[in-house]
Amino acid sequence: MSFTSKTDVLIVGAGPAGLATAWWLARCGINARVVDKRGSKVYKGQADGLMSRTIEILDSMGCGLSQRVSHESYLTYFMDIWTSEAGKLEKNQVVGASEGTHGSSPFRASTISQGRIERYIIDAIQDPSNLNPALPIDRGVQAETLQIDQAMTSEPDAYPVSVKLRYLSHEEANPSTGATSEAATSGLVGSNLMGESWESYATRNKGNEGKTEIVQAKYVLGCDGAHSWVRSQIGIKMEGSSTESVWGAMDVVPITDFPGIRRGCFIKSSAGGMLIIPRERGLSRVYVPYHEVNTDDESNKADRFDRSEVTLSKIKAIAQRMFHPYKFDFKICEWWSAYQVGQRVAERSQDATGRVLLAGDAVHTHSPKVGLGANTSIQDGWNLGWKLAMALAHEPSHTAKKESPAILATYEGERHPVAHMLIEYDRAWSKMFMGNTEHTSDEFLRRFMSFQPFIHGRSFKYPDGALISRQTSTQSVAKNVLVGESFPHAYVVLHANPQEWITTKIFRADGRFRIVLLPGDLSIPDQMSRAREFCERITTANGNEQSLLHTRYPYPFVKLSGVEVAEGQNPDSFIHYRRHPTSLIELITISYSTKPAQDVSVRFEDLPTAMRGQFDEQCFGWDYECAFLDARLETSCDGTAYERWGVDKQKGAVVVVRPDMHVGWVGDIEDVKELEGYFDNVLNSC
Amino acid sequence: MSFTSKTDVLIVGAGPAGLATAWWLARCGINARVVDKRGSKVYKGQADGLMSRTIEILDSMGCGLSQRVSHESYLTYFMDIWTSEAGKLEKNQVVGASEGTHGSSPFRASTISQGRIERYIIDAIQDPSNLNPALPIDRGVQAETLQIDQAMTSEPDAYPVSVKLRYLSHEEANPSTGATSEAATSGLVGSNLMGESWESYATRNKGNEGKTEIVQAKYVLGCDGAHSWVRSQIGIKMEGSSTESVWGAMDVVPITDFPGIRRGCFIKSSAGGMLIIPRERGLSRVYVPYHEVNTDDESNKADRFDRSEVTLSKIKAIAQRMFHPYKFDFKICEWWSAYQVGQRVAERSQDATGRVLLAGDAVHTHSPKVGLGANTSIQDGWNLGWKLAMALAHEPSHTAKKESPAILATYEGERHPVAHMLIEYDRAWSKMFMGNTEHTSDEFLRRFMSFQPFIHGRSFKYPDGALISRQTSTQSVAKNVLVGESFPHAYVVLHANPQEWITTKIFRADGRFRIVLLPGDLSIPDQMSRAREFCERITTANGNEQSLLHTRYPYPFVKLSGVEVAEGQNPDSFIHYRRHPTSLIELITISYSTKPAQDVSVRFEDLPTAMRGQFDEQCFGWDYECAFLDARLETSCDGTAYERWGVDKQKGAVVVVRPDMHVGWVGDIEDVKELEGYFDNVLNSC
Ligand SMILES: Cc1cc2nc3c(=O)[nH]c(=O)nc-3n(C[C@H](O)[C@H](O)[C@H](O)COP(=O)(O)OP(=O)(O)OC[C@H]3O[C@@H](n4cnc5c(N)ncnc54)[C@H](O)[C@@H]3O)c2cc1C
Ligand SMILES: Cc1cc2nc3c(=O)[nH]c(=O)nc-3n(C[C@H](O)[C@H](O)[C@H](O)COP(=O)(O)OP(=O)(O)OC[C@H]3O[C@@H](n4cnc5c(N)ncnc54)[C@H](O)[C@@H]3O)c2cc1C
Repeated sequence: MSFTSKTDVLIVGAGPAGLATAWWLARCGINARVVDKRGSKVYKGQADGLMSRTIEILDSMGCGLSQRVSHESYLTYFMDIWTSEAGKLEKNQVVGASEGTHGSSPFRASTISQGRIERYIIDAIQDPSNLNPALPIDRGVQAETLQIDQAMTSEPDAYPVSVKLRYLSHEEANPSTGATSEAATSGLVGSNLMGESWESYATRNKGNEGKTEIVQAKYVLGCDGAHSWVRSQIGIKMEGSSTESVWGAMDVVPITDFPGIRRGCFIKSSAGGMLIIPRERGLSRVYVPYHEVNTDDESNKADRFDRSEVTLSKIKAIAQRMFHPYKFDFKICEWWSAYQVGQRVAERSQDATGRVLLAGDAVHTHSPKVGLGANTSIQDGWNLGWKLAMALAHEPSHTAKKESPAILATYEGERHPVAHMLIEYDRAWSKMFMGNTEHTSDEFLRRFMSFQPFIHGRSFKYPDGALISRQTSTQSVAKNVLVGESFPHAYVVLHANPQEWITTKIFRADGRFRIVLLPGDLSIPDQMSRAREFCERITTANGNEQSLLHTRYPYPFVKLSGVEVAEGQNPDSFIHYRRHPTSLIELITISYSTKPAQDVSVRFEDLPTAMRGQFDEQCFGWDYECAFLDARLETSCDGTAYERWGVDKQKGAVVVVRPDMHVGWVGDIEDVKELEGYFDNVLNSC
Repeated sequence: MSFTSKTDVLIVGAGPAGLATAWWLARCGINARVVDKRGSKVYKGQADGLMSRTIEILDSMGCGLSQRVSHESYLTYFMDIWTSEAGKLEKNQVVGASEGTHGSSPFRASTISQGRIERYIIDAIQDPSNLNPALPIDRGVQAETLQIDQAMTSEPDAYPVSVKLRYLSHEEANPSTGATSEAATSGLVGSNLMGESWESYATRNKGNEGKTEIVQAKYVLGCDGAHSWVRSQIGIKMEGSSTESVWGAMDVVPITDFPGIRRGCFIKSSAGGMLIIPRERGLSRVYVPYHEVNTDDESNKADRFDRSEVTLSKIKAIAQRMFHPYKFDFKICEWWSAYQVGQRVAERSQDATGRVLLAGDAVHTHSPKVGLGANTSIQDGWNLGWKLAMALAHEPSHTAKKESPAILATYEGERHPVAHMLIEYDRAWSKMFMGNTEHTSDEFLRRFMSFQPFIHGRSFKYPDGALISRQTSTQSVAKNVLVGESFPHAYVVLHANPQEWITTKIFRADGRFRIVLLPGDLSIPDQMSRAREFCERITTANGNEQSLLHTRYPYPFVKLSGVEVAEGQNPDSFIHYRRHPTSLIELITISYSTKPAQDVSVRFEDLPTAMRGQFDEQCFGWDYECAFLDARLETSCDGTAYERWGVDKQKGAVVVVRPDMHVGWVGDIEDVKELEGYFDNVLNSC
């Protein structure tokens, strides 16, 4: 009735956080699996949007996800602020929905349901070009006990964490949502737009119902949401209880004469604020204030408010009141929900041994209206996944590590401050939201604006550590490419064949670090010789040492044995990656040109060989996709990337972009020693 | 052993022409099916690109295909012209690959293999929002006899064409390509990039091998390629035999020091011309001149040249000679082929009864290098499909038609001239291609340029007829929106929520005609009242007549009974269309604004109701996606659509866009009588 198994990484929870982490592990060929107690993925409702930074992440996965977003989602450039007073509803203000962040991303924040977002990442996990596309996602499987063998936690090759899984029956995995009764407590009620034929269980669950499995893992990740079971197993508490609010939310196709229903709207009234987010397929997400609960007094928390008393009609009635004097109705409600959330952050994101880590809602709970739940969860997983892959990729030459790898500790170090910022933002936002009209438009706006860069995934300011080195950087050479922040993406031109490429495509996520050389104009002999000198230095093996670029740090990820990708694969799938990298580091050159791209005199073939990628005589020849131009190209590129990055066109700069597209180091073209120091640090941390 | 069946339309051939036609029939809920004798779709090789006009078509299918193209394909903005003389290879010229057509399409011609293109259209056929997404595509099924019951051809509801189908065995449907021998005659040899696990047969074929089926059809389409079997059944000859050339073509990952291998290149030498097309996934398509055959003397045609003597090594050797003094090699060859084609056009595109029609290579054969085979075939199907759907959609109020509907005759009328132009172009191009260097660069360029608009799917100039009315048009009010040509697409701004929309998305292909009202600036009272007046006139029912816009011509397409779409559909599929249209005509308003989109004073809700789509009180409320602005919007729109279209901002204009996005009529805002006349004509032709 019970069986045992081993895996390097067990991820509990297949929501946005678990899936984003799993994507990296699949990409890098790590032995890992995901379990989720629910019988299906999310199809409807819940999170409703993607911030630009998250779309950048999806784009760098290289599977066409940003294109799917742009096809399926809806855009909102502007938000209208309305005030409802004395029976009148008036529009006071229009604000740019991404004002203050203009130009910070070539992608636009987009609204789309969580079900699609999960779909995108699941498809990306199964992309045949991954090193482990067969990474299992088992649904209807619940984690029930967790034990850590402390003695084993210092052995790198041991599997110190045991988790007991139980295979649920169909009924357990798909609890009745009381779809016939309007007062469904979970809010996961049936839709009248889509059928309820859930995605079938992963095959592995078939015939296993009721069985238990003991999984031994090197690492266990708690990506199991706000009520995280993993978190409670490792005894980590949530901090910062406060006033909790009860919200009603619904995805409806509105029938209304309210002017601006397809625009983003915030309606302020003495009863609180209502938020309207126009969505794909004619839907509107409507958030209404339902109730406020004070939970500071922990003892009577449970019985303060009975969530099951919320019904769709009640939510609708509140909305109708707030839309007055305009009519508001709907015949189609795809999803609705009522929930009660406070702003809380877990004390820590990992246990003392470093073998159990938390991500997503398991670390931070907050109200849904800020639209950051799924975004922050994906970004958590995005930060954690490649670090785990690096820590697990065996380097035979390394001596056995006794401590938990420092690279993993940077996860908490980098993401915990973000969780705190998220909660701070949500508090401010919620106050305005529930608050009445006494909050003036101006204050509202000021606050709203001050958080804009954060909402869009900017200003994260990861602290110095193994992967972020402000001390050895010279920030002034690339004023707007801030060390510790996400790279400011831009369009540039492929050198070998003038066509626009976005930098997220250049920095495609394959676990490699990029040295981005910005040498200025290579048709100027001086600048060409500085660039040549740089290439020389990073490709020359001095004495015993091997060349920084090509041989010192071999690409650590290998195809997971037993997983066949190329053979027998669907001949109709589109393959994205061809070469298996040989080095952990890739050199990307983006030179500058005052001339239009087609008139640039330096040809791709004239570039120093280091700039032309690794020549592969076995199969692929030169790599033509590592040299670029900041130049004008017909209507598609304006040649302003250097300007945007604050890089002097004579002086140039060098930037290190981490696998997650955060900037690790910035320096002068001559600062090769510091550059080498950065990578020594990184590798020592694994 | 034999069974019989009925279908409205039987399409023989599941290549680009058959699939594009089938898409319309699936979209419009027509009872139809496709059969193909080959056991699988195309995966590798053959056609290698999409012209901008074809991408516009894919985009208007509404399934995100243009986004898939932009993710998967490669771009080439420039072509290098090289001359090989006296052992030297020199670059003479760089030409814009779409020069002379600049701005004619927001999409860029893209290179991508035919296998992907077929995949896109097959996916679009199966899109759950279609009215008949279950339209069968049966493979391994060969059409073997065709009979027309002349007596029945004048009865609209009869099934006068009988076709005997034979279900092939696996071996017959997947003939050995001699993959082990390099000298495979068909050229469809195995690839070392992708496996050979062909898409499995359609379920319908299982267990049917060897059986025969008699299909009775209202219409049979011969989309069965250059050696069209249907064409020979109806006794239609190919005209214009001439010199035939034998070409070698290969898709390889080049290993070379040739500067510019990733750019489009044309190398001229005394041995003929070689063409290099950079492709997706690092591939290059290389076309080499192999041999010239004079087939004017029909009698000894067959034994003039033995195609099976061509081998990959021979093709490679020719390429190496032409690349000299540069090195050229490859380890990966995904596909190669050698073939012999003349430039020929079928005498006609239909038989005398009008019940059997031909499309694609069945009508025009030509050399592959012009990259127009698949494009023209898709455009043929695109022209034919909706007309067939219109002809078949039963209008109970109509009296039984005795003649073949005039709308179908416009297919031959519109596409046959295109076939002739294609062949003329191919002749010129082939001459230059096989010709030696005596053709000067200048002549080459002049010729090349003069055909550019045609290559990109422009200048088709469909003649006047039931669907094109130059006589009643006033072309001067929209100088660049030419009657009889494809609509010049542009980006405009959604009125209800400022965001950019491309007109291919607005004109999404659902079989409807669009009246595009270009009223100028609606904040100017005069222009608003002219627009109101126009709306009044097209929505008012005069006497017995019903309103042009809403009721006179009901949307003729209904969901095919027995095909369940909404119920039980994959809840993870993305639904594109929501409303079932009620009228065959949709009003699209694109007003002009000097102000940025966010500052436009006329709100969506202030527009005359006709401009706000059909109000659906059952479910959907107002349709927010039929009113647009030509206005500036941040960085994404520049508000120059009126300019581009040659429309005066005071005078305005009205344009009729057919379901296939060709312009049927152009006139003044006051020309409502002529507008009505246009639609009367259309409907009389069905
Ligand atoms: C009803 C609801 C409505 C929401 N509405 C909004 C909204 O309107 N806007 C918004 O921005 N966000 C909303 N959210 C929040 C958003 O969905 C989350 O922020 C986001 O999903 C967090 O991602 P995650 O991966 O951290 O956790 P989750 O998506 O919660 O995933 C956790 C997963 O872990 C699984 N799990 C838990 N315990 C176990 C166990 N012991 N064993 C196995 N599996 C387990 C769960 O089944 C779940 O699938 C809503 C969430 C819910 C639940
Ligand atoms: C080997 C080869 C190489 C090519 N290379 C190039 C190239 O390099 N560049 C380029 O632009 N174009 C190329 N082409 C041409 C391009 O593929 C065609 O222009 C395009 O496919 C035409 O589309 P179609 O739908 O008209 O016909 P096709 O794609 O030829 O489809 C016709 C279909 O009809 C089926 N069929 C035929 N007879 C019957 C029957 N009796 N019963 C049932 N089914 C039948 C066939 O199996 C076939 O699938 C090549 C074509 C071939 C065959």
